[in-house]
Amino acid sequence: MQRVVWLLMLILSTVPPVRAGESAKEQAAVKRVLDDQTVAWNKGDLEGFMAGYWKSEKLSFFSGDKKTAGWQATLDRYRKRYQADGKEMGKLSFDELSIELLGDSHALVRGRFRLQLKNDAPTGIFTLVLRRLPEGWRIVHDHTSS
Amino acid sequence: MQRVVWLLMLILSTVPPVRAGESAKEQAAVKRVLDDQTVAWNKGDLEGFMAGYWKSEKLSFFSGDKKTAGWQATLDRYRKRYQADGKEMGKLSFDELSIELLGDSHALVRGRFRLQLKNDAPTGIFTLVLRRLPEGWRIVHDHTSS
Repeated sequence: MQRVVWLLMLILSTVPPVRAGESAKEQAAVKRVLDDQTVAWNKGDLEGFMAGYWKSEKLSFFSGDKKTAGWQATLDRYRKRYQADGKEMGKLSFDELSIELLGDSHALVRGRFRLQLKNDAPTGIFTLVLRRLPEGWRIVHDHTSS
Repeated sequence: MQRVVWLLMLILSTVPPVRAGESAKEQAAVKRVLDDQTVAWNKGDLEGFMAGYWKSEKLSFFSGDKKTAGWQATLDRYRKRYQADGKEMGKLSFDELSIELLGDSHALVRGRFRLQLKNDAPTGIFTLVLRRLPEGWRIVHDHTSS
């Protein structure tokens, strides 16, 4: 019987555990990535904001009809739009958030952004797909439209 | 020993199998959903097109700055835009497709749609999240923008 127990332990250790209560914890971890992004943005810290994104050439960023490929190109795009001459970052907030885990290692986030600028208040909706990486949850795909 | 074998079979039957070659098969199944959608669309069969979507009130459909919730509301939206007086469905095709499995039961699809109308050729990019349901792979979230 001892042998059976060992065999069972071996098999069970290779199986993703069914985790009661874990999903709330992971959803909170995803939420924290977004919270950290708004905090960074509102300090004018674009690199800090970009920490929420997968630092990979495979990051994809869709906005309107335009695709941007890779972390660096996404940062460059943000810089051009929000830190170039005459531009401002304003105050960012996320709203209408829904965070759904897709299996163990991915999450789907739907929501709305609001940007408060001096003379304008742009808003739009977004879809994010996050992956749980060794460094934490990171956005691997962003689709935003206004 | 007979008992051990039965016990193992019982446990293994509850575990998602690690499937070599399965992912290509599942990606093909996802692609087929999209292919079926374009075939249905190009026959003017909007209900057939809608068969690719999760028939649920939880289906979400984002287009530009607008959210539509639920299968029926999504069908109504399509009807109004493409089958109302003076509207046409035109010829639909999908392009620049990337199909990525997210674990066993979800897929992320990125791509571009092209619509050939009599006097116009609208295009835009989309993000789809599909789930593997008992009835097959279905789009559970669609975000499209132009």
